[in-house]
Amino acid sequence: MKKGLIFLFVFFLCFQIRAQVKQPNIILFLVDDMGWQDCSLPFWDKPTKLNATYHTPNMERLAAKGMMLTNAYSNAVCTPTRVSLMTGMNVARHGVTNWTNVNSNTPTDFKDSLLQPATWNYNGLTPERHYTNALQHTVVATPLPQILKEAGYYTILAGKAHFASSGMPGASPINMGFDVNIGGSAAGHPGSFLASKNYRQNDKDTSWAVRGLEKYIPEDLYLTEAITRETIHTLDARVSNKPFFLYLSHYAVHVPYDKDIRFYQKYMDAGLTDTEAKYAALVEGMDKSLGDMMNYLEKNGLDKDTYILFTSDNGGLSLKGSRSGEPHTQNLPLKQGKGSLYEGGIRVPMIAAGPQIKPGSVSKQYIVSEDYFTTILQMANAFPKTVKQVVDGNNFLPVLQGKQKSIDGQKTLVWHYPNNWTNVNVKGISWASAIRQGDWKLIYFHKQQILELYDLSKDIEELHDLSALEVAKTKTLAHLLTQKLKERNASMPSWLSTGKTIAWPNEIPILANTNEVIE
Amino acid sequence: MKKGLIFLFVFFLCFQIRAQVKQPNIILFLVDDMGWQDCSLPFWDKPTKLNATYHTPNMERLAAKGMMLTNAYSNAVCTPTRVSLMTGMNVARHGVTNWTNVNSNTPTDFKDSLLQPATWNYNGLTPERHYTNALQHTVVATPLPQILKEAGYYTILAGKAHFASSGMPGASPINMGFDVNIGGSAAGHPGSFLASKNYRQNDKDTSWAVRGLEKYIPEDLYLTEAITRETIHTLDARVSNKPFFLYLSHYAVHVPYDKDIRFYQKYMDAGLTDTEAKYAALVEGMDKSLGDMMNYLEKNGLDKDTYILFTSDNGGLSLKGSRSGEPHTQNLPLKQGKGSLYEGGIRVPMIAAGPQIKPGSVSKQYIVSEDYFTTILQMANAFPKTVKQVVDGNNFLPVLQGKQKSIDGQKTLVWHYPNNWTNVNVKGISWASAIRQGDWKLIYFHKQQILELYDLSKDIEELHDLSALEVAKTKTLAHLLTQKLKERNASMPSWLSTGKTIAWPNEIPILANTNEVIE
Repeated sequence: MKKGLIFLFVFFLCFQIRAQVKQPNIILFLVDDMGWQDCSLPFWDKPTKLNATYHTPNMERLAAKGMMLTNAYSNAVCTPTRVSLMTGMNVARHGVTNWTNVNSNTPTDFKDSLLQPATWNYNGLTPERHYTNALQHTVVATPLPQILKEAGYYTILAGKAHFASSGMPGASPINMGFDVNIGGSAAGHPGSFLASKNYRQNDKDTSWAVRGLEKYIPEDLYLTEAITRETIHTLDARVSNKPFFLYLSHYAVHVPYDKDIRFYQKYMDAGLTDTEAKYAALVEGMDKSLGDMMNYLEKNGLDKDTYILFTSDNGGLSLKGSRSGEPHTQNLPLKQGKGSLYEGGIRVPMIAAGPQIKPGSVSKQYIVSEDYFTTILQMANAFPKTVKQVVDGNNFLPVLQGKQKSIDGQKTLVWHYPNNWTNVNVKGISWASAIRQGDWKLIYFHKQQILELYDLSKDIEELHDLSALEVAKTKTLAHLLTQKLKERNASMPSWLSTGKTIAWPNEIPILANTNEVIE
Repeated sequence: MKKGLIFLFVFFLCFQIRAQVKQPNIILFLVDDMGWQDCSLPFWDKPTKLNATYHTPNMERLAAKGMMLTNAYSNAVCTPTRVSLMTGMNVARHGVTNWTNVNSNTPTDFKDSLLQPATWNYNGLTPERHYTNALQHTVVATPLPQILKEAGYYTILAGKAHFASSGMPGASPINMGFDVNIGGSAAGHPGSFLASKNYRQNDKDTSWAVRGLEKYIPEDLYLTEAITRETIHTLDARVSNKPFFLYLSHYAVHVPYDKDIRFYQKYMDAGLTDTEAKYAALVEGMDKSLGDMMNYLEKNGLDKDTYILFTSDNGGLSLKGSRSGEPHTQNLPLKQGKGSLYEGGIRVPMIAAGPQIKPGSVSKQYIVSEDYFTTILQMANAFPKTVKQVVDGNNFLPVLQGKQKSIDGQKTLVWHYPNNWTNVNVKGISWASAIRQGDWKLIYFHKQQILELYDLSKDIEELHDLSALEVAKTKTLAHLLTQKLKERNASMPSWLSTGKTIAWPNEIPILANTNEVIE
């Protein structure tokens, strides 16, 4: 009888412990416009010239403490990725398919001679109904910080927000469920990274001003540093009985490439052009922020209980004029860059460290923006009853914890970019949809009305289009992509000449390559 | 010859020292809606019941370190005072005669059955031209922080701004020449003082939200405390080779009277009503901030080089509904309160401490809002070449430094309130102009079309109208007031029935009191 009571007591004790699941802190460290090769940490199977160019010791340090994901993806431009992170919805479903303007009701597409962009949510993600061309999240989407807040988290946004246009409630991170907003607004980039320019607070047009950091101007802090300092100050001021979710979303390494004198000269000495030296310095300043955050966690005994997820919102910028060198080569071995559905536009660095993540590990599991939503809720042990949207993201926490090592060959990633990003009329930039399943990737180019198929396990550079050689695979993926787009109510571009929407991928004729026979 | 050289050297050395005038730090500690008797420090010639009610030990401490000015004035409501502080212009000249709405192009006057309010600058003070109904300061006014900034000061606004309506450039303190803005906007009061209400950040209508202090919410800091903490953090982050100008403009002690649990209960225990206990606690929280700032200066060895000017923007609120007790008695012995040109609406606490100000001193010199502009520039040794406006303020630094002890009997103060503040139709609230010269004060009541004359040296309570007994004095002051209003282009109310503007003060008939003869 006595033994039975003790057993019962121990049983209830265990139950009690199980019920009080500890919620870890979570930092989503999101860099803006950082390419897959913009670091000294090699994400390919061998170090590259670019890896030797950049200095990111803290990314190396984080990788040593955790796991690198070498097949991590984003969308081709920023706002679509950010809305996927916030909602767990694929871009084809949430409809914020391009970057949003600071001004409301102002689509950002460049005029094209052939195509009319898809109807899209150019006002962004916003927490109230009745705004046209906006993802109305009281109806269809509950944002991540709102869910985490309700689950007991203290939620902080530091840096860039860019969820919606000015005048939309979603332009304010507070309305998205963040407890604290450090410098976020409708702006997609800062007016200036320089304290000497007051982070553009004094301009006539203050749309791109970064607000609330004026106190760091006298010390002449570069914006990345000012955001980091204010973040640490905010963490210091928090009440420690709550776990925190920190969305540390740096304006770096987006343009303008303002000179960061702390790091600039050494890249000039290494022979880089002025532009590239400024860019490399911007990258290293961002890396220092990562190191500062890691130091903060270690100093305060928080590193064991804190997940850090490090990634970027799209591939590196590769356009002529903004960057030095031949255009579309800035992400080599990857093809093209930001704005493209080739790997250069969507493959991004990803490092994860935290509880149960094995130091120095690597995973090839492919993941994409919306997967973070699901994974972070899993990390937070937050299982909300009222997530209003259909969530497309998958939980990759088992991958991080080493419980699922091999690639899930059935998982599909879908990209959809039915917009015109720039006036650069090059196949690959803008106007495309794509799907990845296993190592296979199919891209549908809207304007050219063609499909291209690549085997990424052998051809990460996307130089060998296999669509005519692997007709069955092409057809299967074209069918799957069409199905995914349709079930997500994807909006497609239309022909200016006829007003008709373009064909679905599975309607594109596939001609088997008969060259081998003829030769 | 050698002696001559030494003499020359000493001469140039002295000249050099004279040329490098040291610029002191300056704190303008401005309380909102604080009445002349809302403190334990007596500003009258004897302690009152109200002095015994409130606890403001740090005001007492500041008075012991410096000088009390017992005849200090403001305007009858907030924005007019704030614009006078910023420009040195009298209210009749700057034309922002009433408080400004958060929304632009929205006059704040209550509808009246007899009078149409004067044409006034209801959009406030704003640094760009071409805004209608706004004081256009690139044309007519250079604001104080802009001048100080150009003179080498580091300029900080903490708390309430309320210089202009939303959408006007002047709504942002940064555009007024402040380097740092802590929580200032177009709002004239906070949505809430409570961290538990997120300082109203999460409301649907965030017009009255106080932004940028979210990091203090977890500690559940009352707004006054959060502003003080962020101010100290900003001072800590400054580069010390610049002097600072801190405009610490608390939202306290304006409504809403949110309960400050640090101080509330002791006032309940003392028998105050719930409303009055909340109000007294709000006052004490403000006083603690003053103490915290004094502690900060002392701890950092700055107190010797820093001026503190403590005052309020108008008299204490005395309306039924907002305060307990009989209306218009909350500033006794002064008559009425906020919104009135009787002493209760315009006489405010004033304490000054700093270099060359004698500890424990008292002055009866009468001063008003626009005098701070001139005096602060004098303190700062800032003599700008391009102050665009006509400045009405006088320098009272010699009074503070004991160089001018007696009242300047020729100095005039002018008030002008040609607006309808509330729906309280009581003579004295709204609709008036007034002048003080020496101990004499003349009030012109627009609606009643009468003049009242008081000798403040004998009748601070304004119970004995002497206009009919002292006809010559009445006529002199009515003439002087008219002259001042006209030369400042004062706008007057008009009669709704005829559309004609009301009479000037010198057009009002004065009937000699013949009662004494009849009796």
